[in-house]
Amino acid sequence: EGAGELNIARLSAEILAGSRASLARGITLIESNTEQHFQKGQNLLESLLPHSGGSIRIGITGVPGAGKSTFIEVFGSYLCDLGKKVAVLAIDPTSSLSGGSILGDKTRMETLARNPHAFIRPSPSGGKLGGVHRKTRETMLICEAAGFDVILVETVGVGQSEVVVRDMVDFFMLLVLTGAGDELQGMKKGIMELADAIIVNKADGSNQEMANKAREEYNRILHYLQPATKGWATRALACSSIKPSGITDIWELVKDFEIETKRSGIFDDRRRNQTRKWLHSMIADQLQSSFFLDNGVKQILPKIENEVISGSRPVASGVEELFNVYLNKFLK
Amino acid sequence: EGAGELNIARLSAEILAGSRASLARGITLIESNTEQHFQKGQNLLESLLPHSGGSIRIGITGVPGAGKSTFIEVFGSYLCDLGKKVAVLAIDPTSSLSGGSILGDKTRMETLARNPHAFIRPSPSGGKLGGVHRKTRETMLICEAAGFDVILVETVGVGQSEVVVRDMVDFFMLLVLTGAGDELQGMKKGIMELADAIIVNKADGSNQEMANKAREEYNRILHYLQPATKGWATRALACSSIKPSGITDIWELVKDFEIETKRSGIFDDRRRNQTRKWLHSMIADQLQSSFFLDNGVKQILPKIENEVISGSRPVASGVEELFNVYLNKFLK
Repeated sequence: EGAGELNIARLSAEILAGSRASLARGITLIESNTEQHFQKGQNLLESLLPHSGGSIRIGITGVPGAGKSTFIEVFGSYLCDLGKKVAVLAIDPTSSLSGGSILGDKTRMETLARNPHAFIRPSPSGGKLGGVHRKTRETMLICEAAGFDVILVETVGVGQSEVVVRDMVDFFMLLVLTGAGDELQGMKKGIMELADAIIVNKADGSNQEMANKAREEYNRILHYLQPATKGWATRALACSSIKPSGITDIWELVKDFEIETKRSGIFDDRRRNQTRKWLHSMIADQLQSSFFLDNGVKQILPKIENEVISGSRPVASGVEELFNVYLNKFLK
Repeated sequence: EGAGELNIARLSAEILAGSRASLARGITLIESNTEQHFQKGQNLLESLLPHSGGSIRIGITGVPGAGKSTFIEVFGSYLCDLGKKVAVLAIDPTSSLSGGSILGDKTRMETLARNPHAFIRPSPSGGKLGGVHRKTRETMLICEAAGFDVILVETVGVGQSEVVVRDMVDFFMLLVLTGAGDELQGMKKGIMELADAIIVNKADGSNQEMANKAREEYNRILHYLQPATKGWATRALACSSIKPSGITDIWELVKDFEIETKRSGIFDDRRRNQTRKWLHSMIADQLQSSFFLDNGVKQILPKIENEVISGSRPVASGVEELFNVYLNKFLK
């Protein structure tokens, strides 16, 4: 145990000193699903926490086919050229189920992956309920302690991943394509209202004029929606990841956002609220998993669900029987 | 206890026979916060459940000043004139905190309250977490067993009450005023995407032209949003509660909705999903209240919140200590 603590102290120092290998080992520790590694990971995190928080955290989501990977490759490389250290994380809640990320590996962003200022980490697999979120958040904190200036968190756009990412970043951008009207029909409910910027991608070649029209249309629609961040008017920009063009404007927008929200206090308020919310959602997850993984509950839940849905039993009476079974475990 | 069961059987029969006094007694039983009444209420509900489900359940929300009470008064009276039995329930989650409804009494809808075909019940007070929702849902079921054809559920428009009501009704309408653009700026996020119809109220006098313009503008915006109900295009109508006008069109729209969604199966699917979701949200509420009302948890939660928000402690480590304290209760 003493040797274990010593290793954590050394690992922590190496991560702070900028060792890439130690960073990867630290994240592997965080991502482990064993109880022993959990404790060591928490110790590591505790020693690194005072050095975290210094980055700008940017969430990136997009409609299918919007060209997220190419955009992140170009945007990330641009930031590296400016001398920034850039970490790219991905969050894929489905990896809780499949046991591995559907995003796979780094091959999607080959240029960025080779850049010495960049660090790309695919989505962790889940383990316990809520595990993917915890691991991605903790990885973000460790990357900050390791000196990364910009954290890009990519969502796979399935399930509730946009909401989850929105809750862990400062700035959230939505990548879209041209044809706003038609495209919006297929867009998830409320997704535009999570965004601090809408980026119309593929504004190049014969597509350029349509992209600019789409940008205008999005700006018009945004006028009717509540902004995601108090005091910040969400706006639409156009860019091309292959030309490339518009990338500088996007980064300038992010910097403006950071300056304005730090001045107003919204930036720090949001981070505090995110941490509080994270604490409470972990509690809720743990309560739920304790309940639904209980063998007694598992056994009678289908029967009770059928009874209440068919209307042969009141819902509250079903809940009461489930809790009698659940609490029985503790009384033994 | 035997006498208690007999009373419940008699009360149930009286409610089914249409006794207004017995209906009120049944609802009072449901709304009681004592454990003994809870059991009797569940027994009553169980006997009435097979007779429930026959109404169309309509949720009504609105921006402040949109004239909800006046609209419900006029719309409800119109339905009574058609020979319908109409129950008006209100849901006010803040009554969990205040111990009483801020909606108060029936004085807001004097004409409707005097109508023998109408039944108006203010929002119950909460008792346990989630108690208001449970009581309103159960009251709705009892009213259906008592033969009510239309249930109007009014939200007070604070907190999450729109989402709660959306989850217990078939059709959800949002009352708004003219000046769509400006008004939308103050509208809650995602609220339009909950609605099956948007009603521009106060389309009368010098306001009529503006109301029709607002209706068109809402229809244009709705084109860009995901509909609340699969296969149903949400649309905007204009009406006047004082003239009155447009009331017939609204009822025709609700009837069209009912026919279409019953034909497609969406109607029954939604009700089944609502019941399943209700079961699961009651479980979540009960788990949360067991946790957060625990004395040990209450004692250390503020300290742990401060530690994780200030960054001196990892969130997962805070959660672990909270659960150690919580589970300790069961081990004693």
